[in-house]
Amino acid sequence: MSESKTNPGRFFEDFRIGETIAHATPRTVGAGERALYIALTGSRFALASSAEFARRLKLPDAPLDDMLVFNLVFGRSVPDVSLNAIANLGYANGRFGAAVYPGDTLSAVSRVVGLKENSNRESGVVYVQTTGINQRGETVLDYVRWVMVRKRDRASPAPETIVPALPESVSPKSLALAADMDLTGYDAALAGSPHYWDDYAAGEKIDHVDGMTIEESCHMTATRLYQNTAKVHFNQHVEKDGRFGRRIVYGGHVISLARALSFSGLANAFRIAAINGGRHLNPCFAGDTVYAWSQVMQKLELPGRRDAGALRIRTYATKDRPCADFPAEGEDLLLDLDYTAILPRR
Amino acid sequence: MSESKTNPGRFFEDFRIGETIAHATPRTVGAGERALYIALTGSRFALASSAEFARRLKLPDAPLDDMLVFNLVFGRSVPDVSLNAIANLGYANGRFGAAVYPGDTLSAVSRVVGLKENSNRESGVVYVQTTGINQRGETVLDYVRWVMVRKRDRASPAPETIVPALPESVSPKSLALAADMDLTGYDAALAGSPHYWDDYAAGEKIDHVDGMTIEESCHMTATRLYQNTAKVHFNQHVEKDGRFGRRIVYGGHVISLARALSFSGLANAFRIAAINGGRHLNPCFAGDTVYAWSQVMQKLELPGRRDAGALRIRTYATKDRPCADFPAEGEDLLLDLDYTAILPRR
Amino acid sequence: MSESKTNPGRFFEDFRIGETIAHATPRTVGAGERALYIALTGSRFALASSAEFARRLKLPDAPLDDMLVFNLVFGRSVPDVSLNAIANLGYANGRFGAAVYPGDTLSAVSRVVGLKENSNRESGVVYVQTTGINQRGETVLDYVRWVMVRKRDRASPAPETIVPALPESVSPKSLALAADMDLTGYDAALAGSPHYWDDYAAGEKIDHVDGMTIEESCHMTATRLYQNTAKVHFNQHVEKDGRFGRRIVYGGHVISLARALSFSGLANAFRIAAINGGRHLNPCFAGDTVYAWSQVMQKLELPGRRDAGALRIRTYATKDRPCADFPAEGEDLLLDLDYTAILPRR
Repeated sequence: MSESKTNPGRFFEDFRIGETIAHATPRTVGAGERALYIALTGSRFALASSAEFARRLKLPDAPLDDMLVFNLVFGRSVPDVSLNAIANLGYANGRFGAAVYPGDTLSAVSRVVGLKENSNRESGVVYVQTTGINQRGETVLDYVRWVMVRKRDRASPAPETIVPALPESVSPKSLALAADMDLTGYDAALAGSPHYWDDYAAGEKIDHVDGMTIEESCHMTATRLYQNTAKVHFNQHVEKDGRFGRRIVYGGHVISLARALSFSGLANAFRIAAINGGRHLNPCFAGDTVYAWSQVMQKLELPGRRDAGALRIRTYATKDRPCADFPAEGEDLLLDLDYTAILPRR
Repeated sequence: MSESKTNPGRFFEDFRIGETIAHATPRTVGAGERALYIALTGSRFALASSAEFARRLKLPDAPLDDMLVFNLVFGRSVPDVSLNAIANLGYANGRFGAAVYPGDTLSAVSRVVGLKENSNRESGVVYVQTTGINQRGETVLDYVRWVMVRKRDRASPAPETIVPALPESVSPKSLALAADMDLTGYDAALAGSPHYWDDYAAGEKIDHVDGMTIEESCHMTATRLYQNTAKVHFNQHVEKDGRFGRRIVYGGHVISLARALSFSGLANAFRIAAINGGRHLNPCFAGDTVYAWSQVMQKLELPGRRDAGALRIRTYATKDRPCADFPAEGEDLLLDLDYTAILPRR
Repeated sequence: MSESKTNPGRFFEDFRIGETIAHATPRTVGAGERALYIALTGSRFALASSAEFARRLKLPDAPLDDMLVFNLVFGRSVPDVSLNAIANLGYANGRFGAAVYPGDTLSAVSRVVGLKENSNRESGVVYVQTTGINQRGETVLDYVRWVMVRKRDRASPAPETIVPALPESVSPKSLALAADMDLTGYDAALAGSPHYWDDYAAGEKIDHVDGMTIEESCHMTATRLYQNTAKVHFNQHVEKDGRFGRRIVYGGHVISLARALSFSGLANAFRIAAINGGRHLNPCFAGDTVYAWSQVMQKLELPGRRDAGALRIRTYATKDRPCADFPAEGEDLLLDLDYTAILPRR
């Protein structure tokens, strides 16, 4: 009887194309999440740090950091999507919507948009589109991720293979920038950099210089903050006999650290509008020091706005490897993240 | 002169039957405590996580997690009760009262309800009833604990032995369930489990499956959050030469982890109404991985309520020992906690 | 091109006497910072812990802990002042102004008030007066610190040597005590000590007894909370080959721990009014256990107040060395802090 009470997580054969899964544990966010996110990542972007800065841009309060929102939405989906995952393979078509303010309550649903059994029949790839919504039903974030999930039973029949068509990048037309946000009051000195959108060039590479060493306590605390329950991050008693002999750092924590490090060089990239794609290239462990560098891939005008522009940015994170030479491959690469950020224009 | 300024803590002979001790450091709680508690324990119970979920039950806001309240009230009492404690022996007759909301200020008083000198005359057992109250004077929690406390002077005369009569369990009549709480709007999908009160059977055992490894930084941060100052949790310079050669994890942190783990199997046990009894069976240290399992001891109807029922639950926590076989004794047992939780009825 | 986007920090020759530097990343503070500060330091002073306690003193809410404010203001200044610092040499003339309440936004500016090249021509000492201000432009804290900063180029000409005249201590006339604060409602039992201003004597020494062991995760989390980006605290990959082979604990975290420990003996020193001076005597590392003791240097009447008095206090912190014998020198000394605190009078 007891077995039926515990959530065993879904296996590959439990997913059905088109199915919608409402995730548990809605979360009211606020001053606590904000402070903890800063304390765990060292993030310094002015908009998420200061309500006064936000009000100068005609926003009602400082919105929560975009990557905090990403990790909170992701966390909701773990018990239903990736409890039996072998690997989190990638992200695409991530679009940030309504800003999240203190007092908002986030919940999430996922729709199964692709399935592909692996040739070994032991596992398969599941594509889900996960949508985070606030208490007014507004979408705060929408993205596709795909994970390799174990089969419960090798003999289960394979589903029809469906791989969703995913855009190479999110169209600038889909970038949500609050219509009432007004960047004419943007204070670059308070934001920490004199470099506006106008000052970046496509192809430009930026070494973010600093490195952040990860401790077990820090990554576990961050991952618990997101109520992400994936076992590999928390249970050394099991992981000591696992693939790596130790706990694996949640990939979303690496994303947050890379974004926080990118302040040095991209301080005015104050709002993430889209995650075009992303992959975790190698596992990260406590004791690793994370570095990052970025390349500006594209400069994008925003329809109908003269006060703001977008940069499509590719950020790489590494472990124990400074990035002055802009490394893009190797075993010390952790992350390849392609996202679109908003910057003020002169 | 300086000696008199520092609180040396009470010794056994300093306690008087009937005496009431008002504890220091009232504490205003809120969004920060909520976020930290989630980040330190990984708790996922919907009621403490979401103000929207709470409002559907006609509550004004998400109350703080019950075990967070327990630890905060306990923390107030440490400097007066257990600074010179050798061991925290047990808990009984714990009754949760008014829910604690962000902005509330908690303070605590303890009444000495029992004294029993040990036959070795080196120490004695002190029984205190500790009451946590909010800024309106309402009781939020009331419980008895007993601790073994050193004597200052072996030659001090023994007090009259008084051992309080403690109920084996808290009567259902004493279970405070806000009269204005209405569970007809309870959303089990958001809460994370389809299993209502009706679906549990007395005697049923539930393995909570997951394990959580404790780091020094995590348990110390949790214990400081509660302003619990007991030295054994914090001072490696002293503890390296102590009984165990290392810091001991505060038992309340183990309780919180066991409760958080119990989400897997008891997600709808959304509110703790009573702590019938509890004992810490073995010390816990950083590096230990905590597992837990529970047995449903009793199904209880709540007087006058058709929307909610109670389960008397016994939760065991272990270290480095998965609980599929429901272990109830041995050196790897950490905790035996008997509590009563409220669940929605169909 | 990329090099220009990253903040390399200022070198000694980049500072000009009289120059004012507006620091980046304004910070809205609140319930999250309060809870984290308690969780990272174990602080128990009643005023910063309880809104109800504050209201009894006619304050609108519990102000943030003074040392939290100090560290937040300090954190703002690091990217501009001490990114290339070799050592943080000292503090003086620190005056706390307006109390900081949840919802306030802090920003900071620094004025260069002294420059002195070192005889080796490799570096020099920079004196800055850093001012923290709230969203109404009120000063919350104002202090001078001096740091040894590397030169970019040994051949750069030395600036005129200017060493500011600094008061040996802040004058009681400059101590800001909110005029509307009223200590007649001060509850010493709730504050945790029966010892009022009247009960302390000049020259009195107090051992704060307890010790707190520092973990890497704890000091890094605290330092990130302050958005202090100094590299030596975070990057083990670099520091393993550095001066000490490991990360250095931010000195402000040692200050916070020493102040939190001082509760035992100085619980009624509820408000810090001034930092007269301070020096970090030796580096602190994870694994060190911090102890502290204090000497009352002076008893000060406050102009026009009968309800409150001030104590000038010198607090020493040590590592792995209990302070029963009041040590004031040696390699295990971490901190020598001279500050003025407010206490209630009988």
